[in-house]
Order: sequence, then C-alpha cells, then structure tokens
Amino acid sequence: MVEKTPVGFIGLGIMGGHMAGHILSAGHPLHVHNRTRAKADSLVARGAVWHERPGDVAGAAEVVITIIGTPADVERVYLGADGLVARARPGSVLIDATTSSPSLAERIAAAASAKGVTALDAPVSGGEVGARDAKLAIMVGGDAEAVERVRPVLALMGGNVVRMGGPGAGQHAKMANQIAIASTMVGVCESLAYAKGAGLALDSVLKVIGSGAAQSFLLNNLGPRMAKDDYKAGFYVHHFIKDLGIALAEAERMRLDLPGLALARRLYEELARQGHTQDGTQALFRLYGASVRA
Amino acid sequence: MVEKTPVGFIGLGIMGGHMAGHILSAGHPLHVHNRTRAKADSLVARGAVWHERPGDVAGAAEVVITIIGTPADVERVYLGADGLVARARPGSVLIDATTSSPSLAERIAAAASAKGVTALDAPVSGGEVGARDAKLAIMVGGDAEAVERVRPVLALMGGNVVRMGGPGAGQHAKMANQIAIASTMVGVCESLAYAKGAGLALDSVLKVIGSGAAQSFLLNNLGPRMAKDDYKAGFYVHHFIKDLGIALAEAERMRLDLPGLALARRLYEELARQGHTQDGTQALFRLYGASVRA
Repeated sequence: MVEKTPVGFIGLGIMGGHMAGHILSAGHPLHVHNRTRAKADSLVARGAVWHERPGDVAGAAEVVITIIGTPADVERVYLGADGLVARARPGSVLIDATTSSPSLAERIAAAASAKGVTALDAPVSGGEVGARDAKLAIMVGGDAEAVERVRPVLALMGGNVVRMGGPGAGQHAKMANQIAIASTMVGVCESLAYAKGAGLALDSVLKVIGSGAAQSFLLNNLGPRMAKDDYKAGFYVHHFIKDLGIALAEAERMRLDLPGLALARRLYEELARQGHTQDGTQALFRLYGASVRA
Repeated sequence: MVEKTPVGFIGLGIMGGHMAGHILSAGHPLHVHNRTRAKADSLVARGAVWHERPGDVAGAAEVVITIIGTPADVERVYLGADGLVARARPGSVLIDATTSSPSLAERIAAAASAKGVTALDAPVSGGEVGARDAKLAIMVGGDAEAVERVRPVLALMGGNVVRMGGPGAGQHAKMANQIAIASTMVGVCESLAYAKGAGLALDSVLKVIGSGAAQSFLLNNLGPRMAKDDYKAGFYVHHFIKDLGIALAEAERMRLDLPGLALARRLYEELARQGHTQDGTQALFRLYGASVRA
C-alpha cells in the first residue's frame, strides 16, 4: 500500500472548506488551520489534524495549500517569523490559492527557494459551485517540475489545471480574468440600465441579446439577478475591489494604461462608499438606478 | 394556390443580400432597389424586379424591408418627398432593419400612421453568418398586430423574432446590445493587453479564463483574433462608432449617465483617428499595443 502525501490546508472559508474536503476524501492525511477554529470542526470530525499555527501545519505536511483573505494576510502567513517559509520541511511545496499580488508571489517563491522549498501561486476560478464540484480552473505559476509533482493533488480540486509560467504567472492570469470581468460587468449594467430607461421588459432584452455577440457569463447569469434587484453575494464587492486594486497596481508597474479597469474600480469604490461592500458584484447595477456619479 | 405577398427589399449589402435571398427562395414576388445596382444582379437573375427609386419599390409591395447605412439614409429613404412613406400602399407595412435611432423610428412610425401605413423598426443581430443561415435575432418595435402579420416574412430571415414594444423599442433593444458589447470589448482588450504585458501565452490565458466568469462571445471569438493581430472586419469600426453615438445620444435624452459607453466611444474614436475605420471592432486591441492615450 502506498502512503499518501500528507497535505496541509490553511484557510477553510467557503472555497477552502470544499477544497480541503476533496483532499481528505481522496485519503490524504490532512493538517489544517484556520483563523476561526469552528470552521475546521467538520474536517477534524472526519480525521483532519488541527494545528494552532500556520507554521505548525507546514511542519507536518509535504504539500501545503493556502486560500486566505488579502495579500497582507498572505505575506504574514508565508513570510512571518513563524510562517510557512520559515517552518516548511525541506523539499516540500507551498501552494497559495489566494487571489493575491503577482509581485508578492515572486517574493515568496524567492524566499522559499532560498530555504530549499518550492512555493507556487495557484489562484482559482469557478466560485463555490466549482469548489464544491471539484471543477475549479486553477492557474498555476512557478517551477515546472514542482507543478507536475503536485498536479495530482491540484486535480482533486479542479479539472482545468494550467501552468501559466514562472512564479507570479498564475496570479497574472487571475488578474487578466478579473480585468475582463470588470468592464464586462460595466457593460452588462449599462445595457440593462439603458433598456430599463427605454421602458423595455428586461427579461425580453436578456432573451434576445443573451444569445448573440453581447452574450457573456455575466449577462446570462447575473443579468437576471440585476433585473430582479437581487444583490445577494456570490462574490463579494469588497473582495472584487481588492482584486481590481492589485490589477491596477500591477498594470502601473508595466506602464500599461487600462482606462476601463480604472473606471470599474472608481464605480465599485462609489458602490462601497454607499455601504454595499457585502453585496455580490452584480450590485454595481445599483449605481445606475437613476444616474451615475463617477 | 395562395399568391404570396409581394415584398420589397432596399439595401442589398452583405446582410441585406442574404436576407432578400431567403424571401425570394420562399416564393415571394420580390421588388428590389440598392444604391449600387450591381449588387442586385444576382437577385434580378433569380427573378427579382429592379426599381430605380426606393419609392417605386414601396408602390409595388405590401411589405417593404430596408437595411441601409445610417440614420440620415433612413430618414431620406423613408421621409423624403418621393420616399417610402409618401409612396407606400395604404395598409402596407414598412420594416426598417437598419441599426438606427429609436427617436427616428418613432417619427417614421408616426408619419406612416398618418398615411394609413404601418412602420416597424426591426434591427437584427447575428452578423453575416446569421443572415446567411437565416438565424438572425430580430428585435421588433411597433404595432403588435402588424408584427404578427409580417412575422412569417421575418421568420424567413431569423429564428428569434421578439417584439420588444411600440415604435423605437426594437432599436432600443439593439442599443442595449451594442452597449453591452462596447464595455465587454474594452474588458477583453484590457485583459489580453495585461496578460501580454505580464508575459503570459495568450492562448493559455484564453483557454483558462474563457470557460469561467470572464467568458463572453467576444472573448471566445475575437480574443483569439486579437492574439494573432488579425483585425479583418466582421463588423466595421465605423459602423460601431455610429451605433455608439446613437446610444449615447439616446441615453442623454433619458438623462442616464453611462461612463463605460462614453469611454468605449472615446477609445473607438481614437482608433478611427489612427486610420482604422475599416478594421473589425476587435481592432480596439491595437490601442493597447504599448499604452493607451484616451
């Protein structure tokens, strides 16, 4: 019998909880940590081992996966004095699935490499449904050999695991994803705001334009929610604002002017100022209720 | 044997040529006019009757369909002294499939109504392939009874014929379509410009992000062309600029501020200033070659 690789998992939120569950189900010894311990309870009941600190997880596993809040959290958990890089076993692989800064991913990879450890960035796309059904798209950046070594573990969480390049390339691909979403969302909101202003029935509009050149995942999936003023969160406004900020900062580093992205961020920040940070991203439509002030 | 309704068709460009051909194939007597006569040759060879002036077509048909250049062309052909409204048979139906101004569509419908004629606006979506395969989406505005009367003729050209409301409502739906396209295109360009700047392989990026929340018809169909710097026209930049201008003017009338649409127009006008009016709309990606100055 082959002993399965011990895996660590840090960050057991909506996404991480599902992802860690798949790894446990596949028979890997699982070591977990989360800021709020209660979220680990169901995994611990199924056999996962709880650790008080992220560094302790790294000390116990060959492969450690993280999916946590912000780049600041990622920096602390990886590069802090008692963090993952400091405590990782030689030869182990650290995988950050948080949507975070490509530059930070590069710094973490370099720091890990200096310790004989490999760090990969591997942000995901597909939302809670993708996480639950193990159908995430996983965009990986980092050492090619290490990617192949951990591919069987990543494949437990997603059907579309693509190496995009060296350290940071996974985060860059995720940023490209968020940049496309940003302006597409603006287009969907403005299309429906116009249609509403013109007195059209939004369900007829969605039916007609949703099958032609204006078709998009956002139009087809979030358009109907906008039409019903349903702003329940699939993906939070405040998380999206974080992502747009990272993307703009990176674009600035490349001296690339992205006026559509800059506009989308201004609009989402206005939405946040109005108190809607806990809404889903489709709540951008709120701004077009009467007139947009951006 | 039932005699089929005589149909008139004015505007035999790429779209109109295919559309008129379907009507002729279905056995309707067809009366045609076009600015450039040569484009009518193949239809005339198949039995269509050529007329020197648009008004003459109206005098010969029960249903007249137009798909011509700009709102100024539409105004002249419909409302000119010897135009369609002046010459139409009492009880006939005039259908404008041009993407044109909703306000003009309302004026034409009123002028026609005063003469005992019904005018409908019925812009289409689906491009040359949709026209060729009779699979256009057709967004109709105008009198409900008249729409039902001409539905069998419209159905010869498109599988998705939806009445959106009264006069102008079809044009409004088409504007909603173009507004969604405008910002989505900006998002696709900026996503790929970012990915290129980050040194990613664009085909890998398209493969990963084209199946998730960033998915859109434009990303999946025009993204690969952008990646190859293929700017051959499916839909011309100068036509799109015309549409964006109409949409912005209408939004202004509604006192609706659409900053994404305004940005897209500025970018497309910059592209036109650089001489790319005869490119396809995906040529917006040219602006992101180094840096955007908009």
